[in-house]
Amino acid sequence: MLTPEYMKQTVDQYLAAINAGDMPAVMTLYADNAEVEDPVGTEPKSGDDILQFYTNAFSGGAKVELTGPVRISAKAAAFPFRAEIRQAGGQVLIVEVIDIFEFDPAGKVVKMTAHFGPDNVTVRTA
Amino acid sequence: MLTPEYMKQTVDQYLAAINAGDMPAVMTLYADNAEVEDPVGTEPKSGDDILQFYTNAFSGGAKVELTGPVRISAKAAAFPFRAEIRQAGGQVLIVEVIDIFEFDPAGKVVKMTAHFGPDNVTVRTA
Repeated sequence: MLTPEYMKQTVDQYLAAINAGDMPAVMTLYADNAEVEDPVGTEPKSGDDILQFYTNAFSGGAKVELTGPVRISAKAAAFPFRAEIRQAGGQVLIVEVIDIFEFDPAGKVVKMTAHFGPDNVTVRTA
Repeated sequence: MLTPEYMKQTVDQYLAAINAGDMPAVMTLYADNAEVEDPVGTEPKSGDDILQFYTNAFSGGAKVELTGPVRISAKAAAFPFRAEIRQAGGQVLIVEVIDIFEFDPAGKVVKMTAHFGPDNVTVRTA
């Protein structure tokens, strides 16, 4: 089940769900015991906190797109993307991120790690 | 010490050392207790096995270059790059990789994880 095509498709579904503002669709990709470490180095979130995290992060709307190929190994996918996140007040944050998805045997994402920091954020004023 | 500039510089030094074929210079970036998991999902290498791994991997010469910004968080750097690796017989493997460097407090790379798989490799015949 955990084919490269399947893992690539999961990444595509993830980005499409964020672009659609459909956070419950994001959640269907995660295992029940998933952990989300975003950004890396912070306390991982789990359970209902994951949905709350996505809802807060993208409440103003977001546009995400791949900026390079998805790197697919035996049980993980790593992908570079750019997120444009609208803030209250009209500012747009542009963030260059690399996410890592680790999959469980059932094909759900059991760990997500997001790599970025202040140096990867620029602000565009509308 | 572990500033974004320092971590970015370490990535630049790493790629420059590979391009120069200088594997001892690669090793100076690693902590004595470093682990290299390349590709992710394989048994991590440590100690002298790391130098041996780099020597074998790049024995025919390699060209590596960033394909996007280095993502820098509190204690890690994640970077997308393309490697062109010359093989015996004239073939060149082109591999799209994302590496993760985790730094120790002394500024050495204590864990390297390389994300790629067969779908990220193409072959060019010279």
